[in-house]
Amino acid sequence: MTNRQIVVKELPQGTLEQSHFELQDARTPVPAEGEVLLRTILMSIDAANRSWMQGATYRDAVKAGDVMATYSICEVMASNTPHIAVGDIVAAESVWADYVTRPARKVQKLPKIDVLSHLISVYGIAGKTAFHGLISVGKPIAGETVVVSAAAGSVGGYVGQIAKALGCHVVGIAGGPEKCKWVVDHLGFDACVDYRAGGLFKSLRAACPNGIDVYFDNVGGSILEATLALMNEKGRIACCGAISQYDSANPSGPRNLPGALVVKRLRMEGFIVMDFANEDAKAIRALQTWVSSGQIKVTEDIVDGLENAPAALIGLLAGDNKGKRMVRVGTDPKT
Amino acid sequence: MTNRQIVVKELPQGTLEQSHFELQDARTPVPAEGEVLLRTILMSIDAANRSWMQGATYRDAVKAGDVMATYSICEVMASNTPHIAVGDIVAAESVWADYVTRPARKVQKLPKIDVLSHLISVYGIAGKTAFHGLISVGKPIAGETVVVSAAAGSVGGYVGQIAKALGCHVVGIAGGPEKCKWVVDHLGFDACVDYRAGGLFKSLRAACPNGIDVYFDNVGGSILEATLALMNEKGRIACCGAISQYDSANPSGPRNLPGALVVKRLRMEGFIVMDFANEDAKAIRALQTWVSSGQIKVTEDIVDGLENAPAALIGLLAGDNKGKRMVRVGTDPKT
Repeated sequence: MTNRQIVVKELPQGTLEQSHFELQDARTPVPAEGEVLLRTILMSIDAANRSWMQGATYRDAVKAGDVMATYSICEVMASNTPHIAVGDIVAAESVWADYVTRPARKVQKLPKIDVLSHLISVYGIAGKTAFHGLISVGKPIAGETVVVSAAAGSVGGYVGQIAKALGCHVVGIAGGPEKCKWVVDHLGFDACVDYRAGGLFKSLRAACPNGIDVYFDNVGGSILEATLALMNEKGRIACCGAISQYDSANPSGPRNLPGALVVKRLRMEGFIVMDFANEDAKAIRALQTWVSSGQIKVTEDIVDGLENAPAALIGLLAGDNKGKRMVRVGTDPKT
Repeated sequence: MTNRQIVVKELPQGTLEQSHFELQDARTPVPAEGEVLLRTILMSIDAANRSWMQGATYRDAVKAGDVMATYSICEVMASNTPHIAVGDIVAAESVWADYVTRPARKVQKLPKIDVLSHLISVYGIAGKTAFHGLISVGKPIAGETVVVSAAAGSVGGYVGQIAKALGCHVVGIAGGPEKCKWVVDHLGFDACVDYRAGGLFKSLRAACPNGIDVYFDNVGGSILEATLALMNEKGRIACCGAISQYDSANPSGPRNLPGALVVKRLRMEGFIVMDFANEDAKAIRALQTWVSSGQIKVTEDIVDGLENAPAALIGLLAGDNKGKRMVRVGTDPKT
C-alpha cells in the first residue's frame, strides 16, 4: 500500500501558499502494541489549522518537517487492541496522509450514521462548535440580535440557523454579494452584510436597528472592532477564532478594547469545542431535532483528493468555501 | 454665598491640561420644587472622569462649557422635599462647585460614620468597585494568582488586599520603584512590578511563576497585552478601566486580542460599580470585616481646595497618587 502524505516544508510567515507544502510518498506504518492502523476517509479543513502553524495553542504547534495535522474520520484496517475492530469507523487527531497509526485510546468510535460526512459537518466539529459557543457562551434568547462573522463558513452557517431556531434576529457577515445572498436565501438569515463592500459599520448598524446582543466572532480584527461599537449593554461576544489574524505577520487588536467592554459591561469569552465534550450528547440531540424540522440545512463543501488539501486550506483562509469544508481522501466502505 | 465652579473650557484631544479648565464665580443656585441645595464637602477624583470627556459612556459626555462632573459627598443646606432634612449628609452625581442643586430623588442619604472620607474610599466607590469587580467578575479562590494594575491607585490597592485576604498570590503593577515598594511593604502584596522600568513581560513572568488566573485591569493597552500572554487557561480578566488609553488620541488595542481569549479560553468582562448596587450591603459588611481584622488598610490621598481639582485629576492620570484621591472642598460639619 502506497502511503501518500503532505509535509509542511516551511512555516509561512504571512500568507499560506502551496509552496509551504510537499506531497511525499512514505511507507505505510505498522501499528505497535496498543495501536491501530487507520485509513483516512475524510479530513476536516479548518481555519484553526493555520493557527497551529503560529505556535503552541490548545495543541502542540505544527513545525516545519511535520506531516500536516488534521482531524479525520477513518476506517480501522488493523488493530492491536481488543476493543477496536477492523472495519470500525473512528475519529482521530491525525495527519494529511492516506494511512496513519494511532494509540487506540486516542481514537473515538463513531456512531452508525447514513452520511459519514455529517459526522464532520452538522454532527461534528462544525455543528458542535456552533452549538456550544452560541448556547453556552453567547446565551442568546428570543428577540435578541445575534451577529456572526464568516457566516457562509462551516461554523457560522450553523450559528445563524440555531439562532433563528431560537427566535433571534440574525445578521451574518460574509465576503462578497454572492455569499451574502446565499446566507439569506439558502440559510434563512434575516440579513447578511458584505464586509468587502466597504462601510461595514454603517451597513451593520442598518442591519441591526436594535443593536447587537450576541456576537459570535470567527474573525477578530476590524470586523470585531465594528461589532464592539454596536454592542448593547451586557452583550456577549463568543470568541471562536480570529481568521483575519492568522495570515498576518503584524496582527492588530481592535482599538476599542478593552474600553468598549467597560463602558457597555460586555463579556467576551473564548472557547474551544472540546471544553464542552460533556455536553456533546445534548448538542447532537438538539441539532438532530432542528435538522429533522428543517430549521437547519446541512451545508458541506467537499474537495476530492488528498493532493488537493493544501489548496483546500489556502482557499478556506481566503474565504472561498460555503459550508463545512473537508477533503475526501478515501472511499466510504459503505458506498 | 459665593459659588465657585470649575468649567471645562475646551475638551482635550490628547493629554489633559490645566488650560482645559477655568475657575469661575457663579450665583449660588436656588432649589426648585422637589430639589435640594447641597454644599460640597468631598469630591471623588477618578480616572473615569477623563473618559467622560471622550464621549457618552455609561453617562452623558462632559462637553465644553459644562461645569466638570464628579461624584460628591455633600451637606444638605436647603430642602424642598419632606424626606431629606437640612444637615443630612448625602452622596450625589454632582459637579466641581461649592454649591449645587439636585433633584431630591437623585441624591442618596449616607449612613452615620466617623470618618466621612471613608464613604468615598474603602466604603465608597473605590472599595465597592474593587470588591464587586474582584469577587463577582474575577472570582478568585485561595491559591490562585491575582494581578492588578494601577496597584497603588484607589481601586487597585483594595483589589490586592481583598485578594490577599482570600488567600491568593497577589502581584501588583505600578509606576516607579517608590510606589512598588509601598504596595509591597505597606499594602502587603506579594510582589509589585514597575512597568516604567522596562521588560514588563519578563518581570511579571518572574513574579507569577504559576501564571495568572485573575487579572484586574485598570489600564488596558500594552500592560493588558503582557498579562494576556501570561494568563492561565480559563483565566478571568475583570475590565474596570483603561487609563492608558484616555489621554491618547490614537488608542491601540492589545495585539493578542481576541487570539489569546480563544487559545486559553479566557473570559474578559467589563463592569461598573453601579451594576452591583443590589450587593452593596454585602460588600460593605465584608470590607468592614477586613478593615476590623487589619487585613485592609484604608489609604486616602486628599487634596485640599476646589481650585486644586484640575491638578488633582491631571496628576492622577499621570499616576502621582497613592490610595483614593479626593478633593476636600468644604468642612465636615462634625469637625
